[in-house]
Amino acid sequence: MRTARVFRLSMAHPGDLSELDGLIVSGTIKAADVAAIIGKTEGNGGVNDFTRGYFTQTLMALLSKHLGRPAAELVREVPCVLSGGTEGVMSPHYSVFCVSEGEAAKRYPSALAIGTAFSAPVPAEDVGRSAHVESVAATVRAAILGAGIERAEDVHFVQVKCPCVTVARAAAAIAAGKTPLTSDPNKSMAFARAAGAFGVALGLSEIKPDDFTDASLLADFAIQSPRASISSGVEVESNEVVVLGNSPNWAGDLRIAHRPMSDALDIGGVVDVLADLGFAASPQVSAADATRISSVLVKCEPDRRGRIRGHRHTMLDDTDINAQRHIRGAVAGLVAGVIGDGRIFVSGGAEHQGPDGGGLIAVIASQEGAG
Amino acid sequence: MRTARVFRLSMAHPGDLSELDGLIVSGTIKAADVAAIIGKTEGNGGVNDFTRGYFTQTLMALLSKHLGRPAAELVREVPCVLSGGTEGVMSPHYSVFCVSEGEAAKRYPSALAIGTAFSAPVPAEDVGRSAHVESVAATVRAAILGAGIERAEDVHFVQVKCPCVTVARAAAAIAAGKTPLTSDPNKSMAFARAAGAFGVALGLSEIKPDDFTDASLLADFAIQSPRASISSGVEVESNEVVVLGNSPNWAGDLRIAHRPMSDALDIGGVVDVLADLGFAASPQVSAADATRISSVLVKCEPDRRGRIRGHRHTMLDDTDINAQRHIRGAVAGLVAGVIGDGRIFVSGGAEHQGPDGGGLIAVIASQEGAG
Amino acid sequence: MRTARVFRLSMAHPGDLSELDGLIVSGTIKAADVAAIIGKTEGNGGVNDFTRGYFTQTLMALLSKHLGRPAAELVREVPCVLSGGTEGVMSPHYSVFCVSEGEAAKRYPSALAIGTAFSAPVPAEDVGRSAHVESVAATVRAAILGAGIERAEDVHFVQVKCPCVTVARAAAAIAAGKTPLTSDPNKSMAFARAAGAFGVALGLSEIKPDDFTDASLLADFAIQSPRASISSGVEVESNEVVVLGNSPNWAGDLRIAHRPMSDALDIGGVVDVLADLGFAASPQVSAADATRISSVLVKCEPDRRGRIRGHRHTMLDDTDINAQRHIRGAVAGLVAGVIGDGRIFVSGGAEHQGPDGGGLIAVIASQEGAG
Amino acid sequence: MRTARVFRLSMAHPGDLSELDGLIVSGTIKAADVAAIIGKTEGNGGVNDFTRGYFTQTLMALLSKHLGRPAAELVREVPCVLSGGTEGVMSPHYSVFCVSEGEAAKRYPSALAIGTAFSAPVPAEDVGRSAHVESVAATVRAAILGAGIERAEDVHFVQVKCPCVTVARAAAAIAAGKTPLTSDPNKSMAFARAAGAFGVALGLSEIKPDDFTDASLLADFAIQSPRASISSGVEVESNEVVVLGNSPNWAGDLRIAHRPMSDALDIGGVVDVLADLGFAASPQVSAADATRISSVLVKCEPDRRGRIRGHRHTMLDDTDINAQRHIRGAVAGLVAGVIGDGRIFVSGGAEHQGPDGGGLIAVIASQEGAG
Repeated sequence: MRTARVFRLSMAHPGDLSELDGLIVSGTIKAADVAAIIGKTEGNGGVNDFTRGYFTQTLMALLSKHLGRPAAELVREVPCVLSGGTEGVMSPHYSVFCVSEGEAAKRYPSALAIGTAFSAPVPAEDVGRSAHVESVAATVRAAILGAGIERAEDVHFVQVKCPCVTVARAAAAIAAGKTPLTSDPNKSMAFARAAGAFGVALGLSEIKPDDFTDASLLADFAIQSPRASISSGVEVESNEVVVLGNSPNWAGDLRIAHRPMSDALDIGGVVDVLADLGFAASPQVSAADATRISSVLVKCEPDRRGRIRGHRHTMLDDTDINAQRHIRGAVAGLVAGVIGDGRIFVSGGAEHQGPDGGGLIAVIASQEGAG
Repeated sequence: MRTARVFRLSMAHPGDLSELDGLIVSGTIKAADVAAIIGKTEGNGGVNDFTRGYFTQTLMALLSKHLGRPAAELVREVPCVLSGGTEGVMSPHYSVFCVSEGEAAKRYPSALAIGTAFSAPVPAEDVGRSAHVESVAATVRAAILGAGIERAEDVHFVQVKCPCVTVARAAAAIAAGKTPLTSDPNKSMAFARAAGAFGVALGLSEIKPDDFTDASLLADFAIQSPRASISSGVEVESNEVVVLGNSPNWAGDLRIAHRPMSDALDIGGVVDVLADLGFAASPQVSAADATRISSVLVKCEPDRRGRIRGHRHTMLDDTDINAQRHIRGAVAGLVAGVIGDGRIFVSGGAEHQGPDGGGLIAVIASQEGAG
Repeated sequence: MRTARVFRLSMAHPGDLSELDGLIVSGTIKAADVAAIIGKTEGNGGVNDFTRGYFTQTLMALLSKHLGRPAAELVREVPCVLSGGTEGVMSPHYSVFCVSEGEAAKRYPSALAIGTAFSAPVPAEDVGRSAHVESVAATVRAAILGAGIERAEDVHFVQVKCPCVTVARAAAAIAAGKTPLTSDPNKSMAFARAAGAFGVALGLSEIKPDDFTDASLLADFAIQSPRASISSGVEVESNEVVVLGNSPNWAGDLRIAHRPMSDALDIGGVVDVLADLGFAASPQVSAADATRISSVLVKCEPDRRGRIRGHRHTMLDDTDINAQRHIRGAVAGLVAGVIGDGRIFVSGGAEHQGPDGGGLIAVIASQEGAG
Repeated sequence: MRTARVFRLSMAHPGDLSELDGLIVSGTIKAADVAAIIGKTEGNGGVNDFTRGYFTQTLMALLSKHLGRPAAELVREVPCVLSGGTEGVMSPHYSVFCVSEGEAAKRYPSALAIGTAFSAPVPAEDVGRSAHVESVAATVRAAILGAGIERAEDVHFVQVKCPCVTVARAAAAIAAGKTPLTSDPNKSMAFARAAGAFGVALGLSEIKPDDFTDASLLADFAIQSPRASISSGVEVESNEVVVLGNSPNWAGDLRIAHRPMSDALDIGGVVDVLADLGFAASPQVSAADATRISSVLVKCEPDRRGRIRGHRHTMLDDTDINAQRHIRGAVAGLVAGVIGDGRIFVSGGAEHQGPDGGGLIAVIASQEGAG
């Protein structure tokens, strides 16, 4: 029986993995058990945010050192999902998801289960289209299978890192007689995130194959999954998937829950997901209870219609601060206030990931001492 | 008997006062009743934020047109306090504080009272020193007297706009044989805000004259007032004060309450001030109840020690986004989430205004239908 | 015989027109002679740059005061073209273009001529299309005619302010059965600038009506005019045109010249336009000669292919600083270095205005004492 | 006889050293010959610029791989000086300074000489004081000696990386009964840069020990060295020095020259340094000649008095863009325009490094084919 553990660690800068190194050296974590990393680095979260690459390089070198295997291999086996931007009260940190075999006796009917999977490379002409959606869906199903989660409703959070088109990849595809959706990396990234969200919805059977066409992506915002968290980047060529859910087949004391957030002011969604895990936030989780929480994962989006509950916001027209930085800071302020802790993962670019103009929240917490 | 009314109005841009114009034209507001304005404009909140000047120019031209009096006079009679920066979920808006005589029958034992006062010009060599503190304190006392608020504990919010030293003013003072604290406008602004906060604390008898010296400003952060909200700017030469409190001598249905905020995650302070006014926020004020709220005023500050509840924040070291923009966005996200409305005044630069690393919140709401 | 004069004035902030006020009060400038203003204000140059509106409001109030006419009328008669963003060494300033009748004896064979014209409002469905191009072309021709410039080659700079579509205008057009090019104001602004540039090229007979179709705008960058300087904004509904050229029909000592700039490093273009006016810049215009210069007008653009002379630039992928701010700062550094003065107008958004990836420069200088 | 070579290489991102790797693999560069690196990475250049750490980690891992020595050792032997921020037309690049023994026949009377040296760690209480100045001076002299440069006037550029105080280092010093100048890292960095500049001036005998006291740093701006380029950072504990000059004791075809820049518009300084090396820039170095240039090194500063040649600049009051980013972009625009190439090193924070409000420029070029 497998056991999932999650370590939420702090960093002094994006190249500082000394806390993880210490835990490996002390034997608390076996390097081979590290299944995935999800973290927030203190960059700007945009195309020119190199804190993600810096962290990833440092992580892979660290694992390589401890495992005696090439970093170039590890980067294709261990998903390292980073969101840049610790606006406002957010604190730079990373959650290390570990899976160990046969260590712990089973104490709860169901416990956190982790599955990871990598797809084949996505051809440039498929990115952001139905073929991309299907590739993600198949990879999600593979990760669920690997995690031993038997029911789709037990999946609570699916993180996907999708490839996008670069100018070079697009040019190569065109030269080969193919027709990529776009040659613009920024547009491609948005379509790739949409394909990822559709793929999660499809993989979880929230939608069916004939519920959408290519034209639905970034257009039909009624199609969304409140369990999909998607990032896209030029640094990957295949879809990388981390599935988090609960399963009777896993030992361990952790449990995950999720809720959609209807808009950036939806404190109700935050309180509800905490209640699902036995926390009272009235108005804040107590410091004692908060130690049970090992990960908080949030997606959000500046409402593209320019208003929140009828009142104009200024995020989309700000030439000085990127709209995603605005919304991350605001939603993190809200979620951190309810939880009493700034070590939360709040990521933007939430197209089709939760309700339009809103997003989603997932929390992982220990069942030990839960109310 | 006087009646205070507050109109919270939206704007399409910093030069748009069409909503106020409409209310004056329709007779809802008499231009002569406008006693003060407190608002949020969509600038950056820094030295080069001209949205405040643009709004003020437009306001004074509007009042001038309706009153037939020169704008240059009105600007010295009607405090117009603007905080730039509508980061995240904040919506650009302004609250118009109106005072009318003998209009309404008294329905509540105590109601919102408004007082305003202007000091004599503050000499450059006094700015940020004890003489400045005393000038503010005297102006605060004058405003309280004018408002007919009999007990210091009935004052809940004191907004002060303090002059600071400009390079030119400092040079003139030096030429006259005086010794200004600094010739640097930015440093001067911080000391001026400190003097304003000390002045409010002194004017409200929260501290005594011998509790501090010149050296206490920006140094002894144990000295603070949870009712002081201070801004400083080159555009004023005297201290401008708006006192908001409750008084049995006023008719009207509004009431004000305030609470300190211990840090940027202090959702408890937000919920408590709402409870003081009869609101349940569990977790959010209902949309129906929220219509009773006519103004939300918040001061906050990025913790200058670099940590919030033990975890590192990155606001102070960010070369891309000013620290005050970060903290405003985060705290506004929290407060707007509890209230369900982005039309809130959240202002940074909260030295000595509420607990160190935190700030304060004041809310004005109708007593009609209060729980 | 008309005389054109240009006063380059400084400002302490975007609402400061005290220098112009002083010149009107002293009689140096007659308010009725003010034909157009072109200036740089210290905003960010983006959608949320309100320094332009602040300046315009202040200017129109000033002219209204001196002329005894409503500001609302003047704003439709006197083009006030502002570019936000004084990055780097640029100094906030504005050039006042004055036209007076019969004052001066003719001393030079040809002198600066100024023409202005306003088109009818551009319907939302026309913005960024051929009909828009034709409207601009006709307005340009009207301004040339008004200026009494007889030969197209004597026109050296055509400033156009084009309307763009707002969400509201687009919705109204759709409701009326029309099909606007886009409902996105930002996209619309870019297409409107393209239409303005095509319109100038057409109005100056640089291109013919059948040289382009709707599809050429923002696509065929071989079509460009090195004399077109276009801005677009939501605040105008018709095309506003200022034509600057030389004419034997004008008295006065000023003269204008222009040159294309092939890329952001094209110092040759700068030196050449100065040589056209009799200046030696070897390497810099001498301080004495520089007093002859009364206006420097530059358009530029971050190369959209991501490279300058083969080397990667990072302007287009910077999430922290807008690409237009980057390029304005760089090109202004170059031009100001050659001229020895930071009071230059450098504006971005140069699609089809000069060579692709480059732009243009125009200089106005006195012929008095020219080498 | 030693030979110095300089390779100016491009990078696709701050972790991309593939060009250097290729040159080492192909045998063009011996890894052991790499003496120092000076480069521009595409960060923001501020405290939270992690592109420098990312590049350095990648470089040291690369050298470690090729040399079979630990990266932790190499980082204390090979100075890697990076300036973040490729504003405007600058292109991310790095210059690799290589020193080889006995390879080349001597062809020129004098050639580029390179010396490097590391001081002992600087105690926290010494940072930014005379003891720090003396430590830098001694290290500069050691590097000059190592380089075999016999005359002080043959030194043209001294790059120093100085340690600064961190909160932790300051606290430890205070606990040990010492009195650091400040506990604020940002203030400490500025004083450390000043100490570095004074140290270079002292090491080059431009000033004498009794020309200054602790109080002169950041105060007496008449003291400056036009050959000092200083950076400061928390990542170093000792002073790292790279001296570049010309010496008859070196073979090779390279040569270095330098000039002060009197202000940000001093194009004359740029043209003069090029003339020193036999280049005509009239107005631009020809593309053919430009291939002879292997490194361009510039320091600059936004004039702290707020004016350039009498006209107000807005760099120091901009809340949106850091002043150093502004000035780097402007000066790089000028220098790149004269040279016709964006691969230039332009660094801010030039206190006491060249004239107040200005800075300096150094250029390295081949003597082969020089005019």
